[in-house]
Amino acid sequence: MDVKQYMQTLGRQAREASRAVARADTNQKNLALLKMAEAIERDAAKLLAANAQDMAHARSAGYDTALLDRLQLTEKTVAAMAEGLRQIAALPDPVGEIDDLKYRPSGIQVGKMRVPLGVIGIIYEARPNVTADAAGLCLKSGNAAILRGGSEAIHSNQAIAACVKEGLASAGLPDTAVQVIGTTDRAAVGELITMRDYVDVIVPRGGKGLIERLMNEARIPVIKHLHGVCHVYVDDRADLAKAVKIADNAKTSRYGTCNTMETLLVAEAVAREALPRIAEIYRTKGVEMRGCDKSRAIVPDMKTATEADWAEEYLAPIIAIRVVADMDAAIAHINTYGSQHTDSIVTEDYTRARRFLREVDSSSVMVNASTRFADGFEYGLGAEIGISTDKIHARGPVGLEGLTSQKWIVLGDGHTRG
Amino acid sequence: MDVKQYMQTLGRQAREASRAVARADTNQKNLALLKMAEAIERDAAKLLAANAQDMAHARSAGYDTALLDRLQLTEKTVAAMAEGLRQIAALPDPVGEIDDLKYRPSGIQVGKMRVPLGVIGIIYEARPNVTADAAGLCLKSGNAAILRGGSEAIHSNQAIAACVKEGLASAGLPDTAVQVIGTTDRAAVGELITMRDYVDVIVPRGGKGLIERLMNEARIPVIKHLHGVCHVYVDDRADLAKAVKIADNAKTSRYGTCNTMETLLVAEAVAREALPRIAEIYRTKGVEMRGCDKSRAIVPDMKTATEADWAEEYLAPIIAIRVVADMDAAIAHINTYGSQHTDSIVTEDYTRARRFLREVDSSSVMVNASTRFADGFEYGLGAEIGISTDKIHARGPVGLEGLTSQKWIVLGDGHTRG
Repeated sequence: MDVKQYMQTLGRQAREASRAVARADTNQKNLALLKMAEAIERDAAKLLAANAQDMAHARSAGYDTALLDRLQLTEKTVAAMAEGLRQIAALPDPVGEIDDLKYRPSGIQVGKMRVPLGVIGIIYEARPNVTADAAGLCLKSGNAAILRGGSEAIHSNQAIAACVKEGLASAGLPDTAVQVIGTTDRAAVGELITMRDYVDVIVPRGGKGLIERLMNEARIPVIKHLHGVCHVYVDDRADLAKAVKIADNAKTSRYGTCNTMETLLVAEAVAREALPRIAEIYRTKGVEMRGCDKSRAIVPDMKTATEADWAEEYLAPIIAIRVVADMDAAIAHINTYGSQHTDSIVTEDYTRARRFLREVDSSSVMVNASTRFADGFEYGLGAEIGISTDKIHARGPVGLEGLTSQKWIVLGDGHTRG
Repeated sequence: MDVKQYMQTLGRQAREASRAVARADTNQKNLALLKMAEAIERDAAKLLAANAQDMAHARSAGYDTALLDRLQLTEKTVAAMAEGLRQIAALPDPVGEIDDLKYRPSGIQVGKMRVPLGVIGIIYEARPNVTADAAGLCLKSGNAAILRGGSEAIHSNQAIAACVKEGLASAGLPDTAVQVIGTTDRAAVGELITMRDYVDVIVPRGGKGLIERLMNEARIPVIKHLHGVCHVYVDDRADLAKAVKIADNAKTSRYGTCNTMETLLVAEAVAREALPRIAEIYRTKGVEMRGCDKSRAIVPDMKTATEADWAEEYLAPIIAIRVVADMDAAIAHINTYGSQHTDSIVTEDYTRARRFLREVDSSSVMVNASTRFADGFEYGLGAEIGISTDKIHARGPVGLEGLTSQKWIVLGDGHTRG
């Protein structure tokens, strides 16, 4: 197969389909989503069989358990996929929403209308359920999608794609509105991220290697998620009961998520009181602590943190701990080593809370709350396609609105400009 | 001079200064803007002398009149620069604005705070007044700026930069918050558009060559303005008096602006009535008409339009004219040949007006109004840094809000995620 030609065809078809889905009304899009869900439930056995094929290949190729975990579909995850599509159908439709329609001195009326981005390219790895999720979110937001899943999930993804296409067709929409790339050739990604005429934005859901490649090679805007080096800062005016609860939850409720705290900062004035209480929890739960000298003077069984620890996203039961002079030092640390993902202060001080909110330049900034809340569902977006650590377009959890943009509309009555 | 090292220094300084301007309150930023305006007025003679130097070089280098026009400063344009800065000071400050702060079922309160982008790189050409404009808009929106003007304007730009720096310093802000690149070496642009650690977004204000270079070489998000192939479609349900007025204004009020109509589309059913009236105006004003066969059958003194004319941005007294079957054909033409800048329908039909607004995928879509209204001042933005033809982040005229983004804020009371 000529990959370039194949991708150009996909692109052309997506561009054409994008006009139909942009025009589609809410009922039509919801019908397609419900029909996709039905097809997935009906074809559950087929999906599991296709997935079994992928699992067998992955096992014989010697992939690790973590990948096999992500790759595996079960009756429960198949049902969850269908349920996810129904939830997307239940979300309000952002497309066509008109804001701020105001009269101007010239007599024209000016406002903004929310519109789809056009064609979205999504690149992801092992989890096959992303295929259904991404298809649903792109469709509901009025976009066409070209999906590129991990090569290890190709059979699962194609089986899900068949259900998605069936749903689109049942609702009278072009089944090219969602296309799952049918080749595992890496060159297909190279085409996808440079087809400027056909793709409007790329959303990668993958590791650092993928993001690095996109930053160097993409010729299309990317809504990217770099990594999550999240902080909790325990201020010297913190309510320590809250601090202990948050330090526990932010680190130990899940180790592998990007909104997990990786570094705990504690104000010097309360370190002696706070650190032993927090350390006791980590010790009990088997979290390895790596501290600065001042932290280790208080909790001697910590390992020594090196400079590299401050910038590390462990995604594991390991935490870096540093005693800082005050909030300014904490903010300076976060701005130096953080990844602008999610950072939280624990304090009862009104002025410091306001300053922290304003001065920490991260996609989510919190007061007296666990970093684990940084999530599309928790924020009320209904669903998320990912979490952006970029600064333009969308920051933080990206839901339906993040897959749209606003154009200007002008209503006149024969108005001309003087 | 080692350009790479020089640019890295500028970048590091800008990043550091960006934190101070992000924190600065409205009064401090406004004070800086007013002090810049004062300095420009006081130094008017110096600015004109520096400009005379640039003009002399440009003349001896044989630049064309259009460029000399754009390059020249006069007492009037210097006064306008100062006035522009005062107008920016009078605009509401977008930074820190909090939207939609809502309680979630978990008990946390979630909202969005408007925040600066960080460091903005602006690349522009001959007009030295952009230096003051861009400095003012970036500062008011809480951003640091690195400005790269045209090499032909280097003395003018450095003189303006001195006034800008004085204004910043008088208000207690770091004078590195706005830096004008002091070398005309083209390699400086190459550095600027790839210094990911120091620059958050690039805003080019220049011709196609510059944009092409950025699309290929930039490793930083670009808010770009490609070109303006704008349309007016005269529907068969148009009020022809309005159609004639709009067709006149959209084309002839100014020929060189990006929101000028370049192609007129007329519904077949009214072409015989509408075209001669519109052609009469163009004929009188010396606008060259290039029509399709059907147009030429009605107005025989038109030239023949070729396929290339439909995609042309003339920026000149030339217009392409095409008779189309109906609105669907007009929308198809616009989607095929347009540049997604600004397109307008003239119609009295309610349903068609709504469909046109929804289905034309341009940054400004209008009903019964001249495309010439697509402008930051006309839209009430107060000022604009440019007009974006991109689809993500900001579409259409970009004012202060377009130079900001929104982060999430979460307010809790010791909340943890279950």
